[in-house]
Amino acid sequence: MRILIINGPNLNLLGKREPDQYGSLTLWDLENRLKEKFSGVKLEFYQSNSEGGLIDSIHKAADGSAAGVVMNPGAYSHYSYAIRDAIASINVPVIEVHLTNVHAREEFRQTSVTAAACKGVIAGFGAESYELALKYLIDLHKGT
Amino acid sequence: MRILIINGPNLNLLGKREPDQYGSLTLWDLENRLKEKFSGVKLEFYQSNSEGGLIDSIHKAADGSAAGVVMNPGAYSHYSYAIRDAIASINVPVIEVHLTNVHAREEFRQTSVTAAACKGVIAGFGAESYELALKYLIDLHKGT
Amino acid sequence: MRILIINGPNLNLLGKREPDQYGSLTLWDLENRLKEKFSGVKLEFYQSNSEGGLIDSIHKAADGSAAGVVMNPGAYSHYSYAIRDAIASINVPVIEVHLTNVHAREEFRQTSVTAAACKGVIAGFGAESYELALKYLIDLHKGT
Amino acid sequence: MRILIINGPNLNLLGKREPDQYGSLTLWDLENRLKEKFSGVKLEFYQSNSEGGLIDSIHKAADGSAAGVVMNPGAYSHYSYAIRDAIASINVPVIEVHLTNVHAREEFRQTSVTAAACKGVIAGFGAESYELALKYLIDLHKGT
Amino acid sequence: MRILIINGPNLNLLGKREPDQYGSLTLWDLENRLKEKFSGVKLEFYQSNSEGGLIDSIHKAADGSAAGVVMNPGAYSHYSYAIRDAIASINVPVIEVHLTNVHAREEFRQTSVTAAACKGVIAGFGAESYELALKYLIDLHKGT
Amino acid sequence: MRILIINGPNLNLLGKREPDQYGSLTLWDLENRLKEKFSGVKLEFYQSNSEGGLIDSIHKAADGSAAGVVMNPGAYSHYSYAIRDAIASINVPVIEVHLTNVHAREEFRQTSVTAAACKGVIAGFGAESYELALKYLIDLHKGT
Amino acid sequence: MRILIINGPNLNLLGKREPDQYGSLTLWDLENRLKEKFSGVKLEFYQSNSEGGLIDSIHKAADGSAAGVVMNPGAYSHYSYAIRDAIASINVPVIEVHLTNVHAREEFRQTSVTAAACKGVIAGFGAESYELALKYLIDLHKGT
Amino acid sequence: MRILIINGPNLNLLGKREPDQYGSLTLWDLENRLKEKFSGVKLEFYQSNSEGGLIDSIHKAADGSAAGVVMNPGAYSHYSYAIRDAIASINVPVIEVHLTNVHAREEFRQTSVTAAACKGVIAGFGAESYELALKYLIDLHKGT
Amino acid sequence: MRILIINGPNLNLLGKREPDQYGSLTLWDLENRLKEKFSGVKLEFYQSNSEGGLIDSIHKAADGSAAGVVMNPGAYSHYSYAIRDAIASINVPVIEVHLTNVHAREEFRQTSVTAAACKGVIAGFGAESYELALKYLIDLHKGT
Amino acid sequence: MRILIINGPNLNLLGKREPDQYGSLTLWDLENRLKEKFSGVKLEFYQSNSEGGLIDSIHKAADGSAAGVVMNPGAYSHYSYAIRDAIASINVPVIEVHLTNVHAREEFRQTSVTAAACKGVIAGFGAESYELALKYLIDLHKGT
Amino acid sequence: MRILIINGPNLNLLGKREPDQYGSLTLWDLENRLKEKFSGVKLEFYQSNSEGGLIDSIHKAADGSAAGVVMNPGAYSHYSYAIRDAIASINVPVIEVHLTNVHAREEFRQTSVTAAACKGVIAGFGAESYELALKYLIDLHKGT
Amino acid sequence: MRILIINGPNLNLLGKREPDQYGSLTLWDLENRLKEKFSGVKLEFYQSNSEGGLIDSIHKAADGSAAGVVMNPGAYSHYSYAIRDAIASINVPVIEVHLTNVHAREEFRQTSVTAAACKGVIAGFGAESYELALKYLIDLHKGT
Repeated sequence: MRILIINGPNLNLLGKREPDQYGSLTLWDLENRLKEKFSGVKLEFYQSNSEGGLIDSIHKAADGSAAGVVMNPGAYSHYSYAIRDAIASINVPVIEVHLTNVHAREEFRQTSVTAAACKGVIAGFGAESYELALKYLIDLHKGT
Repeated sequence: MRILIINGPNLNLLGKREPDQYGSLTLWDLENRLKEKFSGVKLEFYQSNSEGGLIDSIHKAADGSAAGVVMNPGAYSHYSYAIRDAIASINVPVIEVHLTNVHAREEFRQTSVTAAACKGVIAGFGAESYELALKYLIDLHKGT
Repeated sequence: MRILIINGPNLNLLGKREPDQYGSLTLWDLENRLKEKFSGVKLEFYQSNSEGGLIDSIHKAADGSAAGVVMNPGAYSHYSYAIRDAIASINVPVIEVHLTNVHAREEFRQTSVTAAACKGVIAGFGAESYELALKYLIDLHKGT
Repeated sequence: MRILIINGPNLNLLGKREPDQYGSLTLWDLENRLKEKFSGVKLEFYQSNSEGGLIDSIHKAADGSAAGVVMNPGAYSHYSYAIRDAIASINVPVIEVHLTNVHAREEFRQTSVTAAACKGVIAGFGAESYELALKYLIDLHKGT
Repeated sequence: MRILIINGPNLNLLGKREPDQYGSLTLWDLENRLKEKFSGVKLEFYQSNSEGGLIDSIHKAADGSAAGVVMNPGAYSHYSYAIRDAIASINVPVIEVHLTNVHAREEFRQTSVTAAACKGVIAGFGAESYELALKYLIDLHKGT
Repeated sequence: MRILIINGPNLNLLGKREPDQYGSLTLWDLENRLKEKFSGVKLEFYQSNSEGGLIDSIHKAADGSAAGVVMNPGAYSHYSYAIRDAIASINVPVIEVHLTNVHAREEFRQTSVTAAACKGVIAGFGAESYELALKYLIDLHKGT
Repeated sequence: MRILIINGPNLNLLGKREPDQYGSLTLWDLENRLKEKFSGVKLEFYQSNSEGGLIDSIHKAADGSAAGVVMNPGAYSHYSYAIRDAIASINVPVIEVHLTNVHAREEFRQTSVTAAACKGVIAGFGAESYELALKYLIDLHKGT
Repeated sequence: MRILIINGPNLNLLGKREPDQYGSLTLWDLENRLKEKFSGVKLEFYQSNSEGGLIDSIHKAADGSAAGVVMNPGAYSHYSYAIRDAIASINVPVIEVHLTNVHAREEFRQTSVTAAACKGVIAGFGAESYELALKYLIDLHKGT
Repeated sequence: MRILIINGPNLNLLGKREPDQYGSLTLWDLENRLKEKFSGVKLEFYQSNSEGGLIDSIHKAADGSAAGVVMNPGAYSHYSYAIRDAIASINVPVIEVHLTNVHAREEFRQTSVTAAACKGVIAGFGAESYELALKYLIDLHKGT
Repeated sequence: MRILIINGPNLNLLGKREPDQYGSLTLWDLENRLKEKFSGVKLEFYQSNSEGGLIDSIHKAADGSAAGVVMNPGAYSHYSYAIRDAIASINVPVIEVHLTNVHAREEFRQTSVTAAACKGVIAGFGAESYELALKYLIDLHKGT
Repeated sequence: MRILIINGPNLNLLGKREPDQYGSLTLWDLENRLKEKFSGVKLEFYQSNSEGGLIDSIHKAADGSAAGVVMNPGAYSHYSYAIRDAIASINVPVIEVHLTNVHAREEFRQTSVTAAACKGVIAGFGAESYELALKYLIDLHKGT
Repeated sequence: MRILIINGPNLNLLGKREPDQYGSLTLWDLENRLKEKFSGVKLEFYQSNSEGGLIDSIHKAADGSAAGVVMNPGAYSHYSYAIRDAIASINVPVIEVHLTNVHAREEFRQTSVTAAACKGVIAGFGAESYELALKYLIDLHKGT
């Protein structure tokens, strides 16, 4: 069982960037923590600051045998109809995750144009947003 | 450890109401399934179709020793500033859950005025939206 | 044959409230007039100022053998997505009625969020709005 | 007693046009059915696809001794301020009718600029929308 | 010297229609008054309730030797981009007139989409709106 | 002389809820302070988190001999057209009060749909908002 | 094989009207050019400045054996829901064409309410917009 | 008979400012031309760049025996609710004039908040806008 | 103890202007009444129709030892961000007052951009709006 | 003669992605079909999911001797002002094409910010949208 | 060489007003600092809280031989179309400056209606905003 | 001392692209001119048409010892929340520059979503926009 974890723009700075907002865990830490906690699953990690790069990653999920995608589209959530179309174009469940509760921040963060093409959304739980998404995908895969 | 699970308007009809949209699980089934899966936690269930009744339930979480609240405000999510204020007025983490992916439905369902006062949001995973929320609250309580 | 007639907020003051706008017929008068004119049908009347109370009444129509519902949601028409969901959740035809022609009044009265879930809308004919709705439901039941 | 029944754009295709939406009854059928059911009243029928033609018809109601007008302005309901002014310019009660429940369709159909000048609105009951309107006008004339 | 005076929808009812708003002068009276006061000019009068009919009239101004057009587009002012294009398509100065002060009435009357293609606008002076427009066109023609 | 003081949603938590925003005075303290300061007047207190409950309270003012109503509709101010209609339906002066200056807070708090039906609004003076309202109603009653 | 070519308001002035914007080809020239280039097809031409007249023309396509319609609705594109309904009411493919690139002009020209009911849109190529549309309809008919 | 002619911001630069837009006539020229043409009337001229100064001038019309006011509020037309209130506060007819056709310029110039309080509006005729307004006021005074 | 009472545009006409809306009390009367009722406080009165003049007055409150400002910004409330900034720039509590209930009037009067910088707002009580504001400032100063 | 054909995001999945919406033709098939049908022209193909990559491709058209560009910007049409600027920055005619009729889909697809900088738009004809665009560019080149 | 430096509303309080936002430098300090740093240029300073006063100052730049204007319109930037017109009416380059980065503050500060008429904008650099503007005007003058 | 100069989409075409709008200086010329004028500072230049590439460049400023960033985000200013987040995520002052006065161009260019995260904005001075930004950063570094 193989799951893709795709992180969008500025998430490579996680832990260094605005720690009051995003915490001190780095992306490296986050990925390791997930690998540890979900050692029975093959996790593949992508991070890109580029809209096109992220679309390419999403397409890759369709090629292989991925059971699901956990994606944090970062700020692209709020305007990237191209990523939305990419998600809609594959037959693999995609879960949108956010570290922070985007509904409690600036107004532009309260609209997600990518979420409409996803299976669901989990936001506001820091690194645990990813874990809950993984837990769901694994359950879904088992119970399918 | 005590957690409140509050369900808003029309969720008493779960399983009977628009099964294509919401599935065939009844509220009774959902509550029993949660009790079974989270047998180590004291779960308390409320359901009300009334905005005022829901606010009363939220206030109750503040009175006692609740470790958290899992709340599906139903359609009130989209306009009840009174429920938003109720959530903001207590010092207990509240997680907003939705059975369906509200971002993929009618436009009015894409705005949540209650989410801003919550810890986070989980939407789109059917009954498992509740389970993921509970899992998070338990982890949070354990101090993970 | 059983039909529910549900009246929303402030309609208990009918006849006393702004008579220039709403006429001098009281709710009691209205209900009696309907009973008289439609003596062959079992009419059940509910009135509530509470959104939750109205949702409960709507649900009741689903439980029993109601042939239809005539509902005047009053001001809730303009913002109660919870009532809209309640109407959508039952398999009984609901007709929205208004005493006044809401299109000729304040701008907020020109949008009905509940009407989308109804069979149809009749507005502007005073007490006769209810009679026309009843006439339709009876014809529908007869299979005309 | 004389009542005008005015049908707006595309209603000449009734029964042929989008039967899923509008049913299989033709305009001819509809008019005959009304004549039969309301044989005691002098019904006059107009249909025009032209905004100006419809305004002319409305003006005609003012000239003679019409007791009322039943009008389905079709798509002109949503933007014809000229028809609205025509309705406002005569002293005869006009009832706006729609075959379908316009509130449950595309967003542009949820605004009626003509309804503000009418006595009331009846929408969603197919051919029976016209019958209910006629019933009301006859009762009104009788002085009920 | 030849000037066209074009009146739009419902102005044929002038004097009969909402006299509180529009006064008791009929269109016939208005036209005669203008003919008398401007006896040195060849005035041609058109009135139509039809958008297409009005566009045809405007085109006629371009064919002949009209020195100008005085036009009261009535309610079409507020939405007829087709009339706007007709005015823009001729090389004759068009003056938009209104009997009432449209800025002091309903909100939809405060936008004129036709005025942008005109030479200017005169509104609020009853029949004298036409006289002022004629006075201007005559002065313009004289080369003042 | 009898005056009703009606408090809306979440005001039962006053003093406990967000003390930085609302101060440490409880609703109990507030009511006692008002009774003391206005000992010559019969004050009746209601508090409800329910929109319907608040409408019922407003109606009660109409039944008896209340000289006025001081109402803090809480968050319902911003969307409850049903409460607005309730206020408009009685012939007793209602004064809307707010503890905080709602104009200096989130955007949704800057619109009051209930205020339009009131005599006036007093906002931003903490408990003294109620006192100023009472002072006004007493002066009004005295015929000042 | 028979194709209708319907031109909307002000297109009768083509070549005379704003030649900088629309070129010097007249409607007569355009129609002749099309007849010449597509001599194997029976082309029927309609032009009307009237919304109702255009709707009538569209309906005619449904009556006979037309293989398609090429329509330039002119300014009606931007607000005529009645024409949109007419297009939707026939089972013949309609292609909306514009001489100019409407997206590069005034804001109101950037919305087409009629296009939603068409097969597709071709805009910006002058007379060649019509030729491309005809080419497509002929290919479609041939079953390419 | 005494009439006030009030000019708003930047009109002191008339003839010097953007001559392509406003022509080469100076304010001095304009005022002299009006005095000459309307030698039988006592014209009083005010010009101010200050909103407050303009309000003072309007109030002065109320003090004396002015038969009317011709006012070009310049850019203040588009946002000065204070000037609107000033116009509404006097019992003297005020006519709003503009040199250019404001409907054919930037979008913000297409809204006039002051016009609602005026008798009428004349825009687009250069200096002749003032003359037409004066002509109207004189006729009005004569009782035509 | 010294308090400033600042009145904005058109309030110099109080009692003369639209008495149905604003009553027959003149500004002079109002000021005398306040001096009488609050004889223990040093009241200073300013009135200006000019935005700049009002800003100057507000700044004066900061210079001296004013205990507070009662300000009726008139129509400037609805758009003067400059007055808002002036209020925010001083360390003296400012209370916005209005004679009428602005929420029950035209839509533009329902937004106050100046109120956000004030301590609070009192609207709808005629001259008593000023008295209630003064009462509050005096209590505040006493340290109640 | 050389023409560039640029395809934007997700078009690499053509034929695999949502075949109900986009058909079963792959991008490879489409390109081969165009090469075959337009064998006399040198066609160059680019596809990129990246906004920057697409801008680079557009710039390349300016470098060489391209006679035109046929571009399907995919979802970038709806928000990429950067691509719009790229198109505006070259002196080669660009034609925007879409496979589907974007006007008949979600609201966000009904606005094209890139089209304003193009020569024209062709939408709704599947692969034939490209062919019509090529036909036009070849005619343009020949007839230039 | 002569340059005007015009400061708008509330800037006379600089250094005293909200020092966290605007720093502790007074307007006097700022003017002296500029005089010192740009001793080779004749700087003239104006400050006014009045919109009309600022327009007068701008007009003065046109009268004399000013090489440019550096203007901080303060809050008038956000709504004063009259100041915008004043800037557009002179042939001297005007540079809009702001002490703070207006884009990072309240939403209303993110629109500048005056900037459209200026040469350019410099915002966010405190007193150095003025220095950069002066540097540019001097370079422009030298290099003209 | 090291400063990054980052140029966004289409700026590689500077001097070739729309010279009326952007002048004839190429990016190469601009960079050389800056190097010459600011020879005492280590300037590093990046240009990319890709949003992701620009985010990468901004992140690089954070890695090293850059004293500041001068960035012209081109059209990305108007919608790239991802670039905004990138700027906010580093602790180095970023200055947004534009060659043209964006406030005087199309409406979409009047909003900058990236500016909110910057130190300040300089727009409208051609190449000198960059020089002023550099001058500021150098002064800031010197501790002026």
